[in-house]
Amino acid sequence: MKDAFTIWFTGPTRSGKSAIGEWVAQLLRARQYHVEIIDSGRIRKQINRDLGFTKAEITTNILRIGYDCKILNRNGVVAIVVAVSPFREARDAVREQVGEFIEVYCDCPVEELMKRDTSGLLQQAKEGGVQNVAGINAPYEEPFKPEVHLRTSEMTIEEAANLVITTLELLEKVDRIEPSAYTPEEEEMIRKRLTDLGYLE
Amino acid sequence: MKDAFTIWFTGPTRSGKSAIGEWVAQLLRARQYHVEIIDSGRIRKQINRDLGFTKAEITTNILRIGYDCKILNRNGVVAIVVAVSPFREARDAVREQVGEFIEVYCDCPVEELMKRDTSGLLQQAKEGGVQNVAGINAPYEEPFKPEVHLRTSEMTIEEAANLVITTLELLEKVDRIEPSAYTPEEEEMIRKRLTDLGYLE
Repeated sequence: MKDAFTIWFTGPTRSGKSAIGEWVAQLLRARQYHVEIIDSGRIRKQINRDLGFTKAEITTNILRIGYDCKILNRNGVVAIVVAVSPFREARDAVREQVGEFIEVYCDCPVEELMKRDTSGLLQQAKEGGVQNVAGINAPYEEPFKPEVHLRTSEMTIEEAANLVITTLELLEKVDRIEPSAYTPEEEEMIRKRLTDLGYLE
Repeated sequence: MKDAFTIWFTGPTRSGKSAIGEWVAQLLRARQYHVEIIDSGRIRKQINRDLGFTKAEITTNILRIGYDCKILNRNGVVAIVVAVSPFREARDAVREQVGEFIEVYCDCPVEELMKRDTSGLLQQAKEGGVQNVAGINAPYEEPFKPEVHLRTSEMTIEEAANLVITTLELLEKVDRIEPSAYTPEEEEMIRKRLTDLGYLE
């Protein structure tokens, strides 16, 4: 088995990070990987209760999670992080910190986010009743070069998870163990994108 | 291989925690365990720079480390923690949090600590030039029921590490793979102590 790595899901609330992250975890566990899912929101409720939502505090939260990824990875455990992580600089810092890092951008139009949100959180944010909701009333900086760019309003969770796994295979982070979910032509397009971004020779 | 667990080294500065912890890590790695050493002092310099030395802040540091132990353990990685962790209540809380927990008390007389301390830290603490040195000018609460009680001024690092491993074997946390470092009579005494403390039937 190859070395462990971190898959970092970034994107606004309701963009599908958790659901896709869970599915990817299941696919990797089926391949005998140890996988730990770290949910930034849960971390904030548990060990990082002291942190608010200034840029510095968000970055501290991200880098603490990065430390956990690092100690998991170096002991052979794959880390899947689910974190809005709205700041590009913080994501680049954690990429540097962790080393083996795959960024997955869950990209979803605001109208679709609102439609999915049964809790009313986003509506309240829009009306100013809730603060710090990235992409609604707080900044969300899109990644320039995510290894995986998921347009989550245009695909199923399974399709999204398959694109993550195929990308891991093309980047040789995991071995291919069954036929690709894609045609050779589709896979060539994925490979070309990764090459253009500098992730593949 | 059995489930992973956490070995928690507590004791004042210079009591031998790190050296013995490292040795135990080597012995477990030789048995094919993944082992991560978490040094509380290093954690404070890296991810928990915000924390001071009030009882609450010390406890927060300990519980954050406990979270790391938990995610390592549930992915099959043994955690070895090296932390003064002077407060009984915090250690009991982290024991509860982690689950599979072995407390190792590094017990060493102050005079011996002073002798070992080439950095002058303890002398400065004694003179009041440095604050928050547990056991010198800040509280250190001895464990009532540590699984292992090491009198580190009376034994070598190797002997101390062997006692930790033998205890792990008797508690059935690890399999015995080679003859015990102890005579049957000595081992019976270790077993009796563990039984008296309620860790063995």
